[in-house]
Amino acid sequence: MIENKFPGKDVTQEDLVNKMPLVAKKNENHRSTFEVSGVKFGGENIPIFAGPNMIESKDLILDIAKNVKSLGADFLRGGAFKPLSFPYRSDKYTETREKGIEWLAEAKEKYDIPVITEVMEEKYLPLVSEITDIIQIGSRNMQNYPFLTACAKTGKAIMLKRHYGASLRDWLGAAEYILLEGNEKVILCERGVSVPHTHKASSRYLIDLQVVPAAQELTHLPVVVDPSHATFWRPWVKPMALASIAGGADGIMVEVHPDPENAAVDPLQPINYSDFQTLMDSMSLVASAVNRHVGQ
Amino acid sequence: MIENKFPGKDVTQEDLVNKMPLVAKKNENHRSTFEVSGVKFGGENIPIFAGPNMIESKDLILDIAKNVKSLGADFLRGGAFKPLSFPYRSDKYTETREKGIEWLAEAKEKYDIPVITEVMEEKYLPLVSEITDIIQIGSRNMQNYPFLTACAKTGKAIMLKRHYGASLRDWLGAAEYILLEGNEKVILCERGVSVPHTHKASSRYLIDLQVVPAAQELTHLPVVVDPSHATFWRPWVKPMALASIAGGADGIMVEVHPDPENAAVDPLQPINYSDFQTLMDSMSLVASAVNRHVGQ
Amino acid sequence: MIENKFPGKDVTQEDLVNKMPLVAKKNENHRSTFEVSGVKFGGENIPIFAGPNMIESKDLILDIAKNVKSLGADFLRGGAFKPLSFPYRSDKYTETREKGIEWLAEAKEKYDIPVITEVMEEKYLPLVSEITDIIQIGSRNMQNYPFLTACAKTGKAIMLKRHYGASLRDWLGAAEYILLEGNEKVILCERGVSVPHTHKASSRYLIDLQVVPAAQELTHLPVVVDPSHATFWRPWVKPMALASIAGGADGIMVEVHPDPENAAVDPLQPINYSDFQTLMDSMSLVASAVNRHVGQ
Amino acid sequence: MIENKFPGKDVTQEDLVNKMPLVAKKNENHRSTFEVSGVKFGGENIPIFAGPNMIESKDLILDIAKNVKSLGADFLRGGAFKPLSFPYRSDKYTETREKGIEWLAEAKEKYDIPVITEVMEEKYLPLVSEITDIIQIGSRNMQNYPFLTACAKTGKAIMLKRHYGASLRDWLGAAEYILLEGNEKVILCERGVSVPHTHKASSRYLIDLQVVPAAQELTHLPVVVDPSHATFWRPWVKPMALASIAGGADGIMVEVHPDPENAAVDPLQPINYSDFQTLMDSMSLVASAVNRHVGQ
Repeated sequence: MIENKFPGKDVTQEDLVNKMPLVAKKNENHRSTFEVSGVKFGGENIPIFAGPNMIESKDLILDIAKNVKSLGADFLRGGAFKPLSFPYRSDKYTETREKGIEWLAEAKEKYDIPVITEVMEEKYLPLVSEITDIIQIGSRNMQNYPFLTACAKTGKAIMLKRHYGASLRDWLGAAEYILLEGNEKVILCERGVSVPHTHKASSRYLIDLQVVPAAQELTHLPVVVDPSHATFWRPWVKPMALASIAGGADGIMVEVHPDPENAAVDPLQPINYSDFQTLMDSMSLVASAVNRHVGQ
Repeated sequence: MIENKFPGKDVTQEDLVNKMPLVAKKNENHRSTFEVSGVKFGGENIPIFAGPNMIESKDLILDIAKNVKSLGADFLRGGAFKPLSFPYRSDKYTETREKGIEWLAEAKEKYDIPVITEVMEEKYLPLVSEITDIIQIGSRNMQNYPFLTACAKTGKAIMLKRHYGASLRDWLGAAEYILLEGNEKVILCERGVSVPHTHKASSRYLIDLQVVPAAQELTHLPVVVDPSHATFWRPWVKPMALASIAGGADGIMVEVHPDPENAAVDPLQPINYSDFQTLMDSMSLVASAVNRHVGQ
Repeated sequence: MIENKFPGKDVTQEDLVNKMPLVAKKNENHRSTFEVSGVKFGGENIPIFAGPNMIESKDLILDIAKNVKSLGADFLRGGAFKPLSFPYRSDKYTETREKGIEWLAEAKEKYDIPVITEVMEEKYLPLVSEITDIIQIGSRNMQNYPFLTACAKTGKAIMLKRHYGASLRDWLGAAEYILLEGNEKVILCERGVSVPHTHKASSRYLIDLQVVPAAQELTHLPVVVDPSHATFWRPWVKPMALASIAGGADGIMVEVHPDPENAAVDPLQPINYSDFQTLMDSMSLVASAVNRHVGQ
Repeated sequence: MIENKFPGKDVTQEDLVNKMPLVAKKNENHRSTFEVSGVKFGGENIPIFAGPNMIESKDLILDIAKNVKSLGADFLRGGAFKPLSFPYRSDKYTETREKGIEWLAEAKEKYDIPVITEVMEEKYLPLVSEITDIIQIGSRNMQNYPFLTACAKTGKAIMLKRHYGASLRDWLGAAEYILLEGNEKVILCERGVSVPHTHKASSRYLIDLQVVPAAQELTHLPVVVDPSHATFWRPWVKPMALASIAGGADGIMVEVHPDPENAAVDPLQPINYSDFQTLMDSMSLVASAVNRHVGQ
């Protein structure tokens, strides 16, 4: 196992040895590499996950699938189950649940693009596992350990989003629960942290790009960045996506919607098809500059 | 004046109009452009500031000047006056003060490279202004408003480092004090913010790259990033420097030392000449990918 | 409904009306009052919850029950199920699970003291509900909304601990999920927040006492403080418990262990019987000073 | 010197020995005691500092002096020099500077009450030192080390307010600069820290009461709390003042204004005379409960 030379002590050597032996790198160059539905993780390529926050309707998800696929996305993202900080939902913002999962399956089939979607409850795991290529664990469930174990047991690849209040140590500890079940296809995803009021430049989170090299120093798992949720502000998605790639991110998740201002949730953050195309081009250029490439 | 469409309210439209009219962009494309000793700011080029934390000796600063100049740095940085969180200094870590300034002048002259150095007290402004190309205001003095005014009056270009506990609003407000004196050569510099304990991956700060597009949305002033102080950890300097450029930074300040492990202060953060050379090459590639270039 | 005059906008008037109508106070003096096993909440009395972090053994929990009861505690606390940031447990630190619940029931019966214990999974709700007087939802599960709903449906009183990264808004939103099921016996519990690295004085959290009046301004629900988890440091438990009472807390939860240094988990935070006695006396005096009283 | 048993490492034993030997306690019971104009610090009494944010006019400061003195305040506070985050001031919010200092002197003389006022620039030290009993160093100047040294040299007692982004370590390090000049009358003052956006319940700061026992564990210097600036919200001043006293604070600074809503600055935070009277009574009761007393 590598020695942790961290100047800080968020993760100690004792943590590495005793608390995250499966997450920890075995040597400096140790990196997990695996494939999910033909897409490689942990290599020189940088998989792109694109799609809407919510699977609002069948037409919407089919249209987005078609477009992001043709523009080079590796995975279609979209939520049929969606945690909300409050129990009430407007008419517009309604979970499509089982129906949404069905539509997602249809989009996947029709446009031949693998998918990723969030699950929040163990009872939906069988249904979702049947169709999804990657199970997404949302930030609010990052520390719901029994649920992590249940997800791991499906054998599906898992994306573990970091809680906005979680340390690197908390995050890697949660990943260890998944690896412990023998499920090695774990993808970490940074999506912004809550920050001192005085540092906020937007209304919600601060993207933590420093965590990319910090995590890669300790773990062999790939680290994806989601600049849409992190910035919560359309104009910053592109600069932060490019910064993520230049900083070493192993994947990018981005929200795409044909009519962002009328998205069912968080209408300030998605980008439209045209901006996604521009973003793909720019990401390719930056990826080349750091000896990587976008897509397969 | 542009309308502030920020989702958050760290800086309101009222702030823009009443409290930072000189700092505020007059329209979307408004960007300050100016030259300092032949180096352009606010254009497509990305000036590089390199050098040691402290001007430890005459030999050291001359050697570093020679090397960073030949590797393409635009400015030599180095401190002769240095705030310390505690009043005691080891033999090693002693301010060289007037002598240091003299050596810096010699290095500037001999290797024909403009310089930037920190001043902490009004009484040293005449001495330092005579030789420096840019006055650096350290983060601890960011809110020492009478001192900002005194620096502004020298007519020298000024780099204003953000306090690690300061909001974007605080930072821009401080810059307004300088512009109000008719001094328009103001360069902002992000150098890491203090973060929730749970988010720290290193022992000190979190680099705030989101503040680059956030600041550029509101102000016409160039925004430089200092990944050395922000990360406080050598291995992260390169990824965060590249991320800064991809994210839109208008300059990079980096600590370079021939023998980093024996640097007088903060020996975990400087990079050596060879790593600086590699960094310059990588920064050039990333800059090209975003239609900019390193150096003149 | 009251008007939210908050200077900040963490909770807006729209939030109060649309997102937390059940949590929101109907007028300035609105306070929930209810009884749990003979102990009043929301009145002038300040219920005290005391006991170990973990129900390590039958002997331990019986001994603690006897002692804290005789010293005036209203509830015995203790965990049989315990989330850990990492999946490995030392021999010492093993969940006692069903056995622990049985021992807790025995302690409750033998010393006639109501109990509170944490549940982490829906499948254990029937077992635990049978014996516990209050279900504790730990901070890591605060945003596990389907689980909150399941807990609410047991009809048991519920203590909702605040996630260390959660805003007041997030916290009250989570409480709304419980109230929505018709369960009105909801107790909020502050247990420390993650803070900027620069502000930390201990290794983990910062107690947020300001949230006591802030929450009471908006909601009718009682607000308890847990200074043991918040400070993580024995010597600070007493000053922060007293500060909580003077600041308006509606209850205090404190960790008590006969041999703190050998506690199975977090041995730096529990206090022993003698210190608990002193604390009870001091809390009584401070409670009187603010026209309240400790105990029934 | 005491051994630092802190679970966290914000201040290490090495810091205590090498970086803050004068600030550090020599043994567990070591507490500085000194008198300023007849008021004892570091004893069982809890000095109260009361007055307006700004010395708006002669009439105002005289009226407030008369009232807070008669209600039991030990010191009159009020600012003639006032740092602002932006360089522009409304007509209402104008520094009264030399005139304000003169009026403060008059109030002091007429009502026989010692005073405390902020200085921001070395050049005003002679003028202010002549009349003030305590020099207040504002949070923005906490790390302006040359200025701290200059203040220390006046021989006046000094209140050092904590920067809202400063660690305990930074704060104590700054105090060491003052003690090093042989000035032993140093009073620390907590006034709120900037916090993660998710934790804020008000628009600005979070009161850090945990720092009271944390600081007292390491230093012999008295620790005052200013709940007015920390909460920025009138209704929370009383609960947080009482909490501060119960938590061990060695003094309370509170903003008092005859017509709070029309105060020249920060009108949401001052309390009126009647509320101050109630507060004094409540503080006396809570102080008694912890074996201390308000006033001499």
